Parts: sequence; structure tokens; C-alpha cells
Amino acid sequence: MTPAETPETAAETTDTRARPTVRLRPKAEARAIRHGFPWVYADELVLDRRTQALAPGTLAVLEDADRKPMGLVTVNPLSKIVARMLDRNPEAQIDVAWLTARLSHALTMRETLYDAPFYRLVHAEADGLPGVIIDRFGDTAVIQPNAAWAEAHLDALQEALVAVTGVQVIVKNGAGRARQLEGLVEETTVLSGAPQGPVPVQMNGATYMADVLGGQKTGLFFDQRDNHAFAARLGRGGRVLDMFSHVGGFGLAALAAGASSALAVDGSEPALKLAQQGAEAMGMAGQFETRQGDAFDALEALGNEGAQFELVVCDPPAFAPNRKALDAGLRAYERIARLAAPLVAPGGYLVLCSCSHAADLAQFRNSSARGIGRGGRRAQLIHTGFAGPDHPMLPQLAESGYLKALVFRLNG
Amino acid sequence: MTPAETPETAAETTDTRARPTVRLRPKAEARAIRHGFPWVYADELVLDRRTQALAPGTLAVLEDADRKPMGLVTVNPLSKIVARMLDRNPEAQIDVAWLTARLSHALTMRETLYDAPFYRLVHAEADGLPGVIIDRFGDTAVIQPNAAWAEAHLDALQEALVAVTGVQVIVKNGAGRARQLEGLVEETTVLSGAPQGPVPVQMNGATYMADVLGGQKTGLFFDQRDNHAFAARLGRGGRVLDMFSHVGGFGLAALAAGASSALAVDGSEPALKLAQQGAEAMGMAGQFETRQGDAFDALEALGNEGAQFELVVCDPPAFAPNRKALDAGLRAYERIARLAAPLVAPGGYLVLCSCSHAADLAQFRNSSARGIGRGGRRAQLIHTGFAGPDHPMLPQLAESGYLKALVFRLNG
Repeated sequence: MTPAETPETAAETTDTRARPTVRLRPKAEARAIRHGFPWVYADELVLDRRTQALAPGTLAVLEDADRKPMGLVTVNPLSKIVARMLDRNPEAQIDVAWLTARLSHALTMRETLYDAPFYRLVHAEADGLPGVIIDRFGDTAVIQPNAAWAEAHLDALQEALVAVTGVQVIVKNGAGRARQLEGLVEETTVLSGAPQGPVPVQMNGATYMADVLGGQKTGLFFDQRDNHAFAARLGRGGRVLDMFSHVGGFGLAALAAGASSALAVDGSEPALKLAQQGAEAMGMAGQFETRQGDAFDALEALGNEGAQFELVVCDPPAFAPNRKALDAGLRAYERIARLAAPLVAPGGYLVLCSCSHAADLAQFRNSSARGIGRGGRRAQLIHTGFAGPDHPMLPQLAESGYLKALVFRLNG
Repeated sequence: MTPAETPETAAETTDTRARPTVRLRPKAEARAIRHGFPWVYADELVLDRRTQALAPGTLAVLEDADRKPMGLVTVNPLSKIVARMLDRNPEAQIDVAWLTARLSHALTMRETLYDAPFYRLVHAEADGLPGVIIDRFGDTAVIQPNAAWAEAHLDALQEALVAVTGVQVIVKNGAGRARQLEGLVEETTVLSGAPQGPVPVQMNGATYMADVLGGQKTGLFFDQRDNHAFAARLGRGGRVLDMFSHVGGFGLAALAAGASSALAVDGSEPALKLAQQGAEAMGMAGQFETRQGDAFDALEALGNEGAQFELVVCDPPAFAPNRKALDAGLRAYERIARLAAPLVAPGGYLVLCSCSHAADLAQFRNSSARGIGRGGRRAQLIHTGFAGPDHPMLPQLAESGYLKALVFRLNG
């Protein structure tokens, strides 16, 4: 099967009795699934020829080893996660009404948390929509349908999204590794409306320019919002270094909170240009500087210059995205900490972030602490932050919470 | 030796050359100590008769196995933690100037973080003062000198504290287990000034009445401030249940943020009276109710009444203060979650806290999730919080971070 066929072959018949069934092996973790674990791994399912022939995204009834129905799942025989729970009701209809109910539940929480409609509206499994990410930028929404079932139901999802939020512009962002596993092609397209350049986003008093079409991920990293806010308090009146700044996340928040200056360093010229536009929109371009280049080189150069900052933030890409990359990744985090620590003024603050799934909190903290020590400094750990509440997790999957932000205060 | 003799016998001679030395065993973790680990365990030190005869709180020079000086430590042969690092300089003088420097460094961070002088000023090891807790309530400070060295230097500590902060009332709170290990008597006394009844404390828009003389711990739990703030956002317009409320921490913050009503439940009548006084000071007594009694009984009674709240918070005392109590403690956390979950209105929020050292984050989260499931609900985890930044940790001791707050959203 080619990816292009997916929407057709995986589209559901409305007769739920005609759904295929898939069955757990006798030794599978049926109890965990009954208690809310949303995934079935390939070695837990009876993978007969019939199941292996199912198109990615096919809806099926999951049965336990005794053939009792457990719920409605989406199946992907190509993935290690061979089935994902969609609904505990095996007869659920995955239609506009069902999608509307899920989106409404998700929206209620975001409206409780945020004064303005800028947030992650749907964070996949934890919001009841496996593999689906939706970020909202006011009247614009960016959907990442990173699962074949969602690609197959994209029209209904779009209809429900408009009904629930009233957004006028919808972008489909089909980039990233996740889609390949699902047999989906990479493509980013405008599904409705016409995006008018970068969208200005207000967060923590700063203005960020989100490029919803050509930027990284959906254009902005909403997940760091609370960590931006925490760090910004520490930069008041001081000089701030924002390494791996992207569109200026930490640096612009610090300026908004009263930092005297911010230097943003990133490898991407387009990201720095958006950061610069953000600073201009805030009327703070005079306190904002950018430097394009490799982060390790830039840290070494700043060290050689004897540069000092009251607040240094390093928010690198995932150095340890998977188990294989763990050791090298932890060494990279240690190196970042070692190079950054000497740049922190006496009594100043160092924020180190990791968005690596494979590096857990303790591993990342230990690497960071070791790096700070090798950088010749001693530290207190004053805060540990994770992704914001618009990035909920299922408690059963919380171990894999990817984003960690450690806030250290360095010795005087 | 009796505890009363400690201050005398442990008081330091000003001639640092006359200090006793203690020595690491050859296989001790000298590297960890060199890299900032602040403790020496009993099995790592050469415990000869001379060392065993040292009075708790004696200052000594720590040497490595090769007799090279590593720093100045305070020794307590009665404790499993036989030595604690005071200064990497073995010749440091522990006097008013030394204490002033440590307190000033600690104060700078709190003044960066908080607009008003209400916070934990000193959080023991991480603030460079092993075993010493100082909470500040405006012009009043409560010291917990839970280590013999600090008891021996209490006059100097007091002098430094006044010099650095200008506080006028100083209370010594000598309650708690920690002091027994150090051979210190339990006593709470006023060291200077005259406390005038409970101190009103403004946090997150709420008013808390802190009884600095007769209350639990130092009178207020500053550590939950950020978790109060997070939870309060979720209670807007809704009914709030604050279990184990103490002086109203979560409930009053929620009222301040716009909750329609709050019910505070606690076993302590005096704590509830202070909570009531706080609500009155906020002009919100009409929306505030208290119920005195056992929390488990109260949760069951509320369940039988069919009570529903948009926000339920359970912040119990440590159910698992040590390894031995771990299994029973985790069962108690699960029971709390099971009884509390049905009280949460559809789509509402449940905040579960643990201040147990022995239960780590994953254990507490798993117990909580299991309890919610057994209470018939499904949940998203939207936030994990720890103690606030005025409770810093040494990165090397971060594994033992005691306070965890988990914020769940329950299904509709």
C-alpha cells in the first residue's frame, strides 16, 4: 500500500458491526489497558495475516484474549504501537459529533487556563485524539495529523474544529518523523482560509511572531510558556543570553519582564528574523541583539570574550531523541552546561532545558550539574519545570514527559 | 554529654589551627564531596575514639584519605550524616561576617523573586547553612536551628539576621525530629522582640494568618505558594474543596482568584480558626466554610452526601516520611485519590500533594492515578509542581525533593 491510498482504504464504514476485530494475546497487559493505558504494542496483539493486512488507520474493535470487546482502536500494523485506543465504547462513531465532543472538552480547559486564544488545543492521546496535535493562534489553527486515522478523518476534524473554535485559517502541517511510521507523506498545506504572514502571539507580555507555514513545528513552542514566565522574573534589570532562541522565547519574555538587554543565538536565520520582528513589535529592538551560528561555537566565543549575563538560558533541540542517542545526548547536555556556566555572572541564573524523550529528569539533572561543576561553578537548583498545562499527559505515559527545564542559581 | 552542654562544648575557638581534624576512609566518595555533595556518611569517616568523642556541632577540618584538607565541616558522631560541609575553605571563620555573607546571598535571590518580604529565607544545605531553616514574615523571622553547630552559633546568626534583613522579632522554633538526632532539646522561644498574635501574610491575593509561636512548623507553608497559584486558576467561578487545609492555603488562594465558595477541612481546630480569620480579613467569610475532623471520614461523608466541586485539593501530611512507611503511605495516597475523585464535578480538577521524602514522584503519581481509576474516573495530568524557588535544593540532593503536587483534570 502506498501512503496516498491511506485516506481511502482507512475511511470508515458507518456500519460499526462491519468493523474488523483485533485481539490481545493471552499474556498482554489487558489490565493496564482497562485502567487507561492507551496503547497496544505489537507483541501484545494477535498479528495474524488478516490483522497484518489492515491499512494503517483502520478502525477496529479491540478484544481481550477472551474475545470480550475492550473498545474502539485505530490499527497500524507497521508501527510498534500497533493499536491506539480511540473510545472505550467499541460502537462509537468517529464522526463530526464525536470529534466535536473531544475538541469541546479540550477547549474548556484551555479557556479556563488562558485569557487569549493562543495555546495547544489538542495534545494527542491525553486529549483523546491519538497522534493529533492542534495549536491555536487566534483565528488560525495548525493541525498535525500524525496518525493515519486522523488523516483519514481530516475533513470531519476540520469541520468540528471550525464549529468548536470558529477559526478561519486552518493549516495542515504534515512534517516530521511521526508521519512516516504511519505511512503518511510529508506535506504542509493550507486547508482553509489564507494565512497572512507571521501571526503575532502575546505571551507573558512579549510578542512572538509565529510562522505557521514555514516555521519549526507549528510555528511556536507553546510548551515553554510557564518556563519563560519563571525565567523572565530572574532576568529583571540584567543582561540575558538566550541560546537556541528560535523566535526569541526566553529572551523576549525576559525583556518584557524588565531585562536590560537580551542576546538571542540560533542556527536559523529565519527564526532570528522573526525574533527581531517580535522585539520590534514590542518597541524593544534597541535592547535586543541576535547572533546566527552554531551554539557550541557561540558559547565558546562568548567565553573567550569574557561575556557575562545575569541570566543564561539554553533550550537546545533534543540531543537524546531516542535510547540509542542517550549517551551522546547526555554528554552534549553536559557540554552545554560546562560552556554556559562561566557566562553566568556571580549569583546569576542558568536555565537548562531538555526536550529529549530518552533522557529522564534525573539523568538530565545529573548531566547538567556535572557540567556546571566542570565549568567551575557551584549551583542551587531552584526550580524544575515541565511542559505547560495545555500539553497534558496521560498519567500512564507521564514517565515519558519530554520537556524539562532546570533553573539553577550559580554561586557568587 | 547532655544537650544543654552543647553550646559551650561545641563553641569554636577562634584559632582555626586548633581545630580537630576528621578523615575520610580510603573508599569514601571523596569525588562526590569535591563536586559539591555536602554530606559525609558515618561509614565514610574514620570513626576513631577521638572523633567519636567530639560533641555534636564541633567544627572540624575534613581531610581526604591522603590527609589533604577538603573543607570545614560540622561533626555529629551521633548522626548517620556524621559531617556536613560548611565551607570549602578549611580555615573559614564561622562568625557574624561569614553568616552575614550567606544570608545576604540568600536574601538577594528572594528579593529577586518576591515583591514582599514573606518567604523562606534560608533552606538549609542549599543555602549554605546546613540544618538551618529561616522563614520570614515581614518584620518577623522564625529560625529552626536543627543542627548543633547552628544552636552553638545562634547569637551570631541572630546578629547577622538582623543586620541583613532588619527583622525586629525573632522566634526560635525548636520543635521536630531533626533536633533529637543532633542531641538538641525541643523548645520554642522568642529570641528578640515581642510577637503580636498571628501575622497576616499576603500571597497570591489571599491573606493567611501565620501563628509563628504556636502553629505547625514555622506557622505557614511557603513551599506550596506556586502550587496554590496554579490551582487557584482552575477554581474560578467554581466550588472548591480544600482537604487538609491548615490555615487555608489552597482554599483562600482559590477564593482570591474567583472561586464561588471554598470548604476547608482539617483535623486542627486552631488551624481552621486561623483560616477563618484569613477569610474574614479578605472580606470573603461569606464564601468560606470549615469542617473539623478526620480527612478520610470527611471525604467519605462528602461522597455519601453526593457533594461535587469543580476543584478538589488534598494536601495531606507525609504518609511516607521514611522507607519503612512507604508501602502503607502509598496505599494511603491511593485511598485519598479514590475517595476524592468522585467529588470532582465532570471536567473538574483534582490536585493531589505529597510531602513524603520516601515516596518518589513516579510512585506517588502511580498511586494517585490508580486511586483515581478506582474512584471511577479517568484523568489527564496537566501539571507537576514542586516546592517553590525559596526552597532551593542542591542538585546532588535533588532526588530527595520532598514536595510534589500533581494536578489532574478529570473526565466529563
